[in-house]
Amino acid sequence: MKTALVAGQGRLPLALARAMADRPLVAALDGFSPDGLAVDLTFRVERLVPFLRALERDGIGQVIFAGAVTRPRLDPALLDEATAALLPRLMQAMAAGDDATLRVVIQLFEEFGLAVAGVDSVAPALLPGAGVLAGTPGLRDEADAARAAAIVTALGAVDVGQGAVVAQGLCLGVEALPGTDALLAGIAALKPGLRPDPARGRGVFYKAAKPGQDRRIDLPTIGPDTLRAVAAAGLGGVAFQAGSVICLDLEEMQRLAGELGLFLWARA
Amino acid sequence: MKTALVAGQGRLPLALARAMADRPLVAALDGFSPDGLAVDLTFRVERLVPFLRALERDGIGQVIFAGAVTRPRLDPALLDEATAALLPRLMQAMAAGDDATLRVVIQLFEEFGLAVAGVDSVAPALLPGAGVLAGTPGLRDEADAARAAAIVTALGAVDVGQGAVVAQGLCLGVEALPGTDALLAGIAALKPGLRPDPARGRGVFYKAAKPGQDRRIDLPTIGPDTLRAVAAAGLGGVAFQAGSVICLDLEEMQRLAGELGLFLWARA
Repeated sequence: MKTALVAGQGRLPLALARAMADRPLVAALDGFSPDGLAVDLTFRVERLVPFLRALERDGIGQVIFAGAVTRPRLDPALLDEATAALLPRLMQAMAAGDDATLRVVIQLFEEFGLAVAGVDSVAPALLPGAGVLAGTPGLRDEADAARAAAIVTALGAVDVGQGAVVAQGLCLGVEALPGTDALLAGIAALKPGLRPDPARGRGVFYKAAKPGQDRRIDLPTIGPDTLRAVAAAGLGGVAFQAGSVICLDLEEMQRLAGELGLFLWARA
Repeated sequence: MKTALVAGQGRLPLALARAMADRPLVAALDGFSPDGLAVDLTFRVERLVPFLRALERDGIGQVIFAGAVTRPRLDPALLDEATAALLPRLMQAMAAGDDATLRVVIQLFEEFGLAVAGVDSVAPALLPGAGVLAGTPGLRDEADAARAAAIVTALGAVDVGQGAVVAQGLCLGVEALPGTDALLAGIAALKPGLRPDPARGRGVFYKAAKPGQDRRIDLPTIGPDTLRAVAAAGLGGVAFQAGSVICLDLEEMQRLAGELGLFLWARA
């Protein structure tokens, strides 16, 4: 079955294309090009239906979404009639939030006969299963990771973030709209008096999927940059939910974790 | 009944002493003096029992705790025999966290015949009941405050923070160990692309007690500095749980909110 990769910004589309058995057709939303990956086809939301028909004509049987897209502005002058008819559904979903929008986008693709696949099925190597991948988390780290996992689960229930930082049982911060980089930069900037003495446990950055999220889009992603930010924040390592977090360039992450003295742990 | 105010750092002890009907005896932990309030009696944790007996001798019937205290270092050379016997209980509680420590401290005072009162009973004016205290929160602000309240409730269940910032339904951050100042400073430092367009709703800082917390200690506190930080973060105002959040100098807060163009809202 021919696959189209609907790519957003960032490095994930390239990593995904490389990890797939067959080269996919690469489509990108106008204005949101992936890093380092050639785009075969550019489309606009205002002309979504012609784009979906083009995929059909090309014999595409399934699509996979990867990369970041912020809400695009819509230019009414560009709308075709068929897409215009879908607009109320799309606009209503966009008003209800990102998750609702993604659910409707998946529905629309499926209504046009395109299956929507997840990273699990097309590139499972990007989602490491349980195991310690670098360094050696200690008992204190295990306890911190467990507390962070409980916090992320509680946050997921109110649809906030996918990450938290815990050191010596104390929560130093959780991920909200501004994302991982902002969370870790904030912790790097903390005055020493506002965090526990690192000599007794440097702390863990933990990342997980939202409970109940559609695993076909928006799985959390970490990479070498995450490890650099974790080291800059003075933490001891990264733990993540095994099988649910995409690792961009795992080999380089393992090498870098060793260099930075961090652990990297896919937690069951 | 004579009351002792056991004061920690910050401005709350002074505000509390002023709001009480009768002047209390002011006791402070060695090294943690309140701002602007004369201390009648200094004590050390190593000599807790002699301190409790001195309160008894002075005819003190109840105590109220106010102000911040970080875990003091203990000097074994200063211990008296009676306090030494209590140490295992105290140390165990300190290892289990701040809430556990406070519970044990309350128990010890009660075992020595001292009732532990809350702000509710000795200075209810510091805890505003439901109502808009400054400005006019709009429908968007009401929705943001409701979402923030749900987030703080979820966080409370995992014993994290008492505050959250929501703008246009999106959570910009939650309060963790580093506290309100760090949260608001982080939001002030956000790049514009990482938050929704303020023209459509500037957002709300929301504060509440932890669900199920002992209301006799560590109720959340806001004051004029909070409003300045909220303005610097570009938010539209402050909402808080009516009857459960201490307002330091409410009159000054109302004046300042007007000057800064913020609303201040005790939400039922």
